[in-house]
Amino acid sequence: MFSLGMTLRRAVQVNGSGLATVFGQRRRTWAELQERVARLAGALATRGVNAGDRVAVLGLNSDRVYEALFAVPWAGGVLVPVNSRLAAVEVAAWLGDSGARVLLVGDEHLPLLSTLRAALPQLTTLVHLGDGPPPGGLLGYEALVASQAPIEDQGRGGDDLAALLFTGGTTGRSKGVMLSHRNLLVNVLQFLAAAPVPADSRLLHVAPMFHIADVLFCLVGASLAATNVILPGFSPAAVCTTIARERVSHALLVPTMVAALLHSPELAGHDLSSLRSVLYGASPMPEAVIAGALELLPQVAFVQGYGQTESAPILSVLPPAEHRPGNPRLRSAGRAAPGVELSVRDEAGRPCAPGVVGEICARGENVMLGYWELPELSAETLRDGWLHTGDGGYLDEHGYLYLVDRIKDMIVSGGENVYSIEVEQVIHAHPAVAECAVIGLPHDELVEQVHAVVRLRPGASLDAEALREHCRQQLAGFKCPRGVTIRSEPLPLSGAGKVLKRQLRDELRR
Amino acid sequence: MFSLGMTLRRAVQVNGSGLATVFGQRRRTWAELQERVARLAGALATRGVNAGDRVAVLGLNSDRVYEALFAVPWAGGVLVPVNSRLAAVEVAAWLGDSGARVLLVGDEHLPLLSTLRAALPQLTTLVHLGDGPPPGGLLGYEALVASQAPIEDQGRGGDDLAALLFTGGTTGRSKGVMLSHRNLLVNVLQFLAAAPVPADSRLLHVAPMFHIADVLFCLVGASLAATNVILPGFSPAAVCTTIARERVSHALLVPTMVAALLHSPELAGHDLSSLRSVLYGASPMPEAVIAGALELLPQVAFVQGYGQTESAPILSVLPPAEHRPGNPRLRSAGRAAPGVELSVRDEAGRPCAPGVVGEICARGENVMLGYWELPELSAETLRDGWLHTGDGGYLDEHGYLYLVDRIKDMIVSGGENVYSIEVEQVIHAHPAVAECAVIGLPHDELVEQVHAVVRLRPGASLDAEALREHCRQQLAGFKCPRGVTIRSEPLPLSGAGKVLKRQLRDELRR
Repeated sequence: MFSLGMTLRRAVQVNGSGLATVFGQRRRTWAELQERVARLAGALATRGVNAGDRVAVLGLNSDRVYEALFAVPWAGGVLVPVNSRLAAVEVAAWLGDSGARVLLVGDEHLPLLSTLRAALPQLTTLVHLGDGPPPGGLLGYEALVASQAPIEDQGRGGDDLAALLFTGGTTGRSKGVMLSHRNLLVNVLQFLAAAPVPADSRLLHVAPMFHIADVLFCLVGASLAATNVILPGFSPAAVCTTIARERVSHALLVPTMVAALLHSPELAGHDLSSLRSVLYGASPMPEAVIAGALELLPQVAFVQGYGQTESAPILSVLPPAEHRPGNPRLRSAGRAAPGVELSVRDEAGRPCAPGVVGEICARGENVMLGYWELPELSAETLRDGWLHTGDGGYLDEHGYLYLVDRIKDMIVSGGENVYSIEVEQVIHAHPAVAECAVIGLPHDELVEQVHAVVRLRPGASLDAEALREHCRQQLAGFKCPRGVTIRSEPLPLSGAGKVLKRQLRDELRR
Repeated sequence: MFSLGMTLRRAVQVNGSGLATVFGQRRRTWAELQERVARLAGALATRGVNAGDRVAVLGLNSDRVYEALFAVPWAGGVLVPVNSRLAAVEVAAWLGDSGARVLLVGDEHLPLLSTLRAALPQLTTLVHLGDGPPPGGLLGYEALVASQAPIEDQGRGGDDLAALLFTGGTTGRSKGVMLSHRNLLVNVLQFLAAAPVPADSRLLHVAPMFHIADVLFCLVGASLAATNVILPGFSPAAVCTTIARERVSHALLVPTMVAALLHSPELAGHDLSSLRSVLYGASPMPEAVIAGALELLPQVAFVQGYGQTESAPILSVLPPAEHRPGNPRLRSAGRAAPGVELSVRDEAGRPCAPGVVGEICARGENVMLGYWELPELSAETLRDGWLHTGDGGYLDEHGYLYLVDRIKDMIVSGGENVYSIEVEQVIHAHPAVAECAVIGLPHDELVEQVHAVVRLRPGASLDAEALREHCRQQLAGFKCPRGVTIRSEPLPLSGAGKVLKRQLRDELRR
């Protein structure tokens, strides 16, 4: 059966002396990493982590976070990666829901500890992920690894719970997505079948490792026994310097990172010739950004992955060959990955004809076990054997999937369906626009009215009427925004880089 | 969950109008194929095939056999591919073991029917795979498909039994290997992660489709919605003509087919430029053959897969980059595929150090459910969570697997272990030798003595003493064959192209 442990043992068998992780000056081989994982697992077991117990990790990306991804399941535990951008009360709620008694915490998040300790008396073991001496009451990560004898893999795998990832940032309250060893490792293979990665690759982890997209990318690295180059956070300078220095071949980036890179002067100043592939996803990439990326990084094969935490995450892939300027399929999320079955269904659960919008549903062994302690929501989401993604979209006659909206974000204005993505693509094409989001706001006659929230590029100017005129040239009248908010601060984003539309709606309704 | 049905539905979704099968002049799209599969499944259901019922297929490769691979599971049944080279009594034993009540049979095997009917009164439904009018008592395949309404996929998948493949041709009696939907489809993904195949490929099926290697290759074709070009049997002329005409890009061949191709004048007479990759396996390829193949087909990437029916089948892969003349790793079977854990273990079940010979063991979700109605043998083969392959071999420090022998074929002569593959490679390098096999025969003092069975090339001559002298120059004395049998007829091969050493031993002991 599949297990994260076997993935690690295979990596040691085929590439034990090869580099597993690079983090700043620190480099570990696969053999070293397995030894450290087995020791950390021993330390967790000594502190009472048994089969199925949750262990939370709260920190910026690091090689230690990478090790924890394997050490927790090796000890029989369940990894709970915590969104490092949450506020203390949100982290406390998340940890409380998970029931974790052990937390690994990075330096940047030490200020949250007083709140967490007060709210969560069950939190008995705190491990310091940082380099310096651990603060009072915390165990030092390196001291734990050094003091403990390695233990055997506790042998969980297959359907056993491996990770609990909280999600739901863009709509409603957080839910804990239960992913099994099989869910995670099958999705690695599904992804690789659609978008092959050579075994001698060097993967860049700069997207947050608490998010399922980079969890997958971490497991791709381990499944291939490739090298994982890890950055604690994103900046164009850090990414360009690191790609050049470590000869990074594959990077997973969220679209906002790609856009920031393209607009950065750093791009021209470094040798990025090693970079062969960029995997992006989590949200659609504006076509202008794709076009710029193809022009500025001609040697790079772009791969889009679409999915969600509930599917571990990849459901569909748009391969490099479709990334041609002007190709209308660039607006799609690609086609079902091998081993994934996609179906767009209407409210009665019937498959929609090509071109007809419905809810995107999926089947495959990458689909989650369910939501943690939410049996009713699990049953509703997994009904009739299909994962109901909550995403609206349609398939064309060739199986390409086009997203239109979260089902809950769809705007019904004057009896017409308006899909925010279509309007956003038009607005984004305006040269003055840096960011935009289109939402529905309550309206007495129309039920909902289309509203655009826009941030302009530095130095650019645009008023509401000019933006509406731009839209009227390309969109039916009922799709054009009646309301326009021009703001100077960036749009609120989830950890995955998706615009938090719920938050925008809440702000504008006040 | 994974199912053969979802694989087919995805193929229709992403490439419904693309070619699924090419067989002579007959071409079917994926949409046509699914329609035919659902109709054939309806016909099977009408004739009493229920969930878990076995349906046997006995015939040379054809597009109809390809359809049956999907139609039987679509109806909820279990496919039993029958080795088309067996004698009637062997087929009867095989069918009897499986309990199949339905048999699809090709023209070439109609002469076996009287024996089968006499031995197997439970065989109530016979379907004629051929083109002409069906013989008396048989149903016509096309009439069945035409008359029946398509039915819904009966929804089996995951751990449900999908196929029962009888094996054990080279040692001992036949055993029915139970493979689930998950076993088969996980192995497709494991293989693709190790040896990517583009979605627009055209796959040649000339190796027997009743053998697990081509079953995998058929499922690779379906998982990618690629085109499957099918030949009923092997000849160098047919293969070369077909590659050129159908622009075949990927072929699965057994080593004897590769050797026959290389020695054929056909090779030079056709445009084989479309051929990008040859997957070979089932038995090791002599190094002289590999070297010739690399020279004569320089545009082709060779991929070796090692495995067995019990692992559905791929366990390890030697990728194209290792196929360089003079590379010592050409003697290996490559490294564990992603998602497979390999371990070489001694008789007490302890892992062997690198370089030490033991039994090759494996774990992964591709490992069979067990042997059909043989619970004790299943428990013995799958003990301690590991598939015990029965193959002897060792791993080097870089995870490359080297096969030495079937455990049961290992020769212990005068207290020394002799691995037949090592001796066979030396003998095979002699220019006069066309085929050879090295076995152990009973010996009063030595317990076993090393014995070589050799077939010479046409026109070549070699006597036993000259062969022994050739061996003595390269092998320790105890490894050199004491006995030599020079024969003119080809060595007996299993359907998979492996030499039937048990049969040779039986012949020579008489």
